[in-house]
Amino acid sequence: MTAPFADRLADLVEARSSQIVLGLDPDPARLWPDAVAQAPSEGSPAHRAAAAVRAHCAALIDAAGPACVAVKPQLACFERLGAEGWAALAATVAYARAQGLLVIADAKRGDISVSAAAYAQALVGSTPTPFGDVAGLGADAFTANPLLGIDALEPIVGGARAAGAGVFVLVRTSNPGAADVEDLVIADGDGAGETVWERLAAIVADLGAPPSTTSGLSDIGAVVGATAPEHVARMRELMPHAPFLLPGIGAQGGRVEDLAPAFAPGRAGGLVSASRSIASAHESGGAPPAAAARAEAERLREAAWSLI
Amino acid sequence: MTAPFADRLADLVEARSSQIVLGLDPDPARLWPDAVAQAPSEGSPAHRAAAAVRAHCAALIDAAGPACVAVKPQLACFERLGAEGWAALAATVAYARAQGLLVIADAKRGDISVSAAAYAQALVGSTPTPFGDVAGLGADAFTANPLLGIDALEPIVGGARAAGAGVFVLVRTSNPGAADVEDLVIADGDGAGETVWERLAAIVADLGAPPSTTSGLSDIGAVVGATAPEHVARMRELMPHAPFLLPGIGAQGGRVEDLAPAFAPGRAGGLVSASRSIASAHESGGAPPAAAARAEAERLREAAWSLI
Repeated sequence: MTAPFADRLADLVEARSSQIVLGLDPDPARLWPDAVAQAPSEGSPAHRAAAAVRAHCAALIDAAGPACVAVKPQLACFERLGAEGWAALAATVAYARAQGLLVIADAKRGDISVSAAAYAQALVGSTPTPFGDVAGLGADAFTANPLLGIDALEPIVGGARAAGAGVFVLVRTSNPGAADVEDLVIADGDGAGETVWERLAAIVADLGAPPSTTSGLSDIGAVVGATAPEHVARMRELMPHAPFLLPGIGAQGGRVEDLAPAFAPGRAGGLVSASRSIASAHESGGAPPAAAARAEAERLREAAWSLI
Repeated sequence: MTAPFADRLADLVEARSSQIVLGLDPDPARLWPDAVAQAPSEGSPAHRAAAAVRAHCAALIDAAGPACVAVKPQLACFERLGAEGWAALAATVAYARAQGLLVIADAKRGDISVSAAAYAQALVGSTPTPFGDVAGLGADAFTANPLLGIDALEPIVGGARAAGAGVFVLVRTSNPGAADVEDLVIADGDGAGETVWERLAAIVADLGAPPSTTSGLSDIGAVVGATAPEHVARMRELMPHAPFLLPGIGAQGGRVEDLAPAFAPGRAGGLVSASRSIASAHESGGAPPAAAARAEAERLREAAWSLI
């Protein structure tokens, strides 16, 4: 029986002394040169590009992974290479796990009833078929979109829990457009005067309560953009037990130093996600890609770890 | 150069005298028996199940497709079979197009900046790589989730337009949980007193205006649950040019007869989506699966077509 995600996360944060999540957003046109050179010289563009993507992700994990607790593959970047891309995704997930890292599938999925359940099967569970069970991607957690409401999140949460996996629900994202919907102020009901994101935070807290884990963290976390640090304390108030996944550091302008309230329930309460700032660190620094990525991941690790 | 999605849709609705969208939500445990029997006797469970899913979808398209204008594969149902499932999805998309049907990928994707653009590449566009361009799924349109705001929708819309494809943005879904977020009343700004879904409808109308199509329909449509017909007239007021994708007919309780306002801009303004009520029609009627599916699709086609 797999231990609950929250406990595995808390243990691994301590064991690796890191709260850093390595984003894997491979753009086939911007892969590390050695990865492109390793691709097979024969085969379809999809086959060759997927091989290069896989090599790039493995090299990035080799370089920056030791400073991280998890990887976060962006599913869009793999899906655009079709079935070959999905196979590269599965191989990358397996490689990261073999290196002792957790895997958070950045899928931002949301749908209703059986479709929501199917996404949980695809990412963290398995699917019964007349030919035997088919294992899903094998991620430890995935990101989910809550627009469709509680009854759409419940099959996702149920599927994740059955697999000992976690879910990070979008609460307030790191882009300027978060103001268009997530920041709207609600007029009606008990929560009058709250924003949509505060309502979403309350839904996340309800879905995750009470945390039945030894760490005290919930298996239902929240995606909280690091570009709006003024909200982090309020998020923590609304979701005292949720692990926060904090994207937007580096390339999007967020700073680790602004995120201290996230870590109130312990170091695993705030996971700092960075993608381009690590993978593309060599573009500004002049060092080889792997060395630059390792240095940037270690810099972030130290910055986050020193906050508690 | 591909004609804009809206014009292709309007022409095909007239040519096929149908507004019906055939949902493809294959559950490997509930496939038509002949499809299971056709699966190879060797290979991994994923390989065999994906072959059965592909055969099931082809049989469903053969049976019900002639009464329909489009198919709507639910991506979750394919992703749960991994790379084999994605290959079955791609084969199903190609098969539907070869039968003269449009394909609306029910993906409900939403993400920011380059990730949003990557989803458009994956579903309707292509991806430049050092090894040549990699074609995406080849769908004609896909569904998108607007929670992340306008700047997250823009790369999706831009990618779709560049491919002559359409986007159906979730506005109000067909599940009871739509009340939790989509129905919240907004307190602030110009739209005070509106619901979140009305704000989403305004965003959809802005993204799609003015429609530069000969049909007068926009290439940016809306997903409008058929289970809340009291909202359809208001939706049409807010989004005069958007094609509506109307799920929730049949198994979820919606009735075609309640949807007349959707068709105000013409028959292609309202696409009636049905999945389980067609694929599982034999479970209540006693006819063989294909005959029951054909009859139910034709019944829906006639019911919708008679509304204008």
